[in-house]
Amino acid sequence: MVHSRGGAISGEGAGKSTQARRLAATLAATGIPVLRTREPGGSPGAEAVRRLLLGEGPWDNIAECMLHFAARREHLACTIRPALEAGIWVISDRFADSTLAYQCYGQGVPRAAFDALAAVALEGLAPDLTLVLEIDPVEGLARAAARGDTNRYEAMEASFHARIRDGFRAIAAAEPQRCALIDATGGPEGVAAAILHLVRARL
Amino acid sequence: MVHSRGGAISGEGAGKSTQARRLAATLAATGIPVLRTREPGGSPGAEAVRRLLLGEGPWDNIAECMLHFAARREHLACTIRPALEAGIWVISDRFADSTLAYQCYGQGVPRAAFDALAAVALEGLAPDLTLVLEIDPVEGLARAAARGDTNRYEAMEASFHARIRDGFRAIAAAEPQRCALIDATGGPEGVAAAILHLVRARL
Repeated sequence: MVHSRGGAISGEGAGKSTQARRLAATLAATGIPVLRTREPGGSPGAEAVRRLLLGEGPWDNIAECMLHFAARREHLACTIRPALEAGIWVISDRFADSTLAYQCYGQGVPRAAFDALAAVALEGLAPDLTLVLEIDPVEGLARAAARGDTNRYEAMEASFHARIRDGFRAIAAAEPQRCALIDATGGPEGVAAAILHLVRARL
Repeated sequence: MVHSRGGAISGEGAGKSTQARRLAATLAATGIPVLRTREPGGSPGAEAVRRLLLGEGPWDNIAECMLHFAARREHLACTIRPALEAGIWVISDRFADSTLAYQCYGQGVPRAAFDALAAVALEGLAPDLTLVLEIDPVEGLARAAARGDTNRYEAMEASFHARIRDGFRAIAAAEPQRCALIDATGGPEGVAAAILHLVRARL
């Protein structure tokens, strides 16, 4: 299925990047052209916004949400759309659902503001499949800390990460045809097999 | 009138900054507490977004519009609202009308996108008075070049600046109770007198 894309998303430390890399390699080995990208970032301008988001702050919650969507729009215009138009599958490590989980469920940005920004930035584009890698927030943060990978979001308190987990669950439950929850507490081999099974069944 | 604010806006080289400084000094001399600020910028986070906007790019037009509103939201949250709540008048060198003129009239961003972003970022806040300093675009650009002040916008072609001038005129015509067009082709003394007359009559 050309023009497909999956947004591999989750809380911290669930192995998104590893799994995105493995899935891209598996698809490429079967002859599917595939581009792996990430958010916030994925294009030169969006990476510059990422540095602002992670390096400066604290931001006003609404301003932060707008910066995420500005980066996403840039990512879409410069990287995702050109790839899809060339028949390349796109696997993005995070997409709009991460903003919904972090900024709305985590930080209290009103859903109406998210919806308005998503409508302006995405103009109706959505992933064909979104994989939510689920892990206990405490274990996920411990994994992220163990690899020395702590940013401003990872430093936030446990209740914030519990709200994000609940947010991702609610998002997946609301759109079961687009989203799939994957238990990411096991080893990377088992998670990769579960992801491949899902991608084969759905795309 | 406490909580008043005027957004002194215009195309390039019309003397906004000079006039904002003069108006602030005149108001302060009559005992009115006044804060002079500018956009994009006006708070640490918003100034960081300003550096992105003017230093990187070209941006996707919608992404650029979102960055302007993210900076504006930050400016509002960190600088404008706290000042207004403390009874301080705020004079901003540019505000939302500049985004409407530059991004919509100049770069073709749909008005509906502007309205959606303005609703999210401003939540209904608008200046009490907006002064549009009008100058012939060619003369304005020549003035800006003479002071060595050229940024990415100032480097754009003459037709772009003509569309911005037309945009500011349309904005002022659509909201005559909030906006006033001021002929800025004369010397700074005459322009300052015209501005003071307007501020006294309206605020």
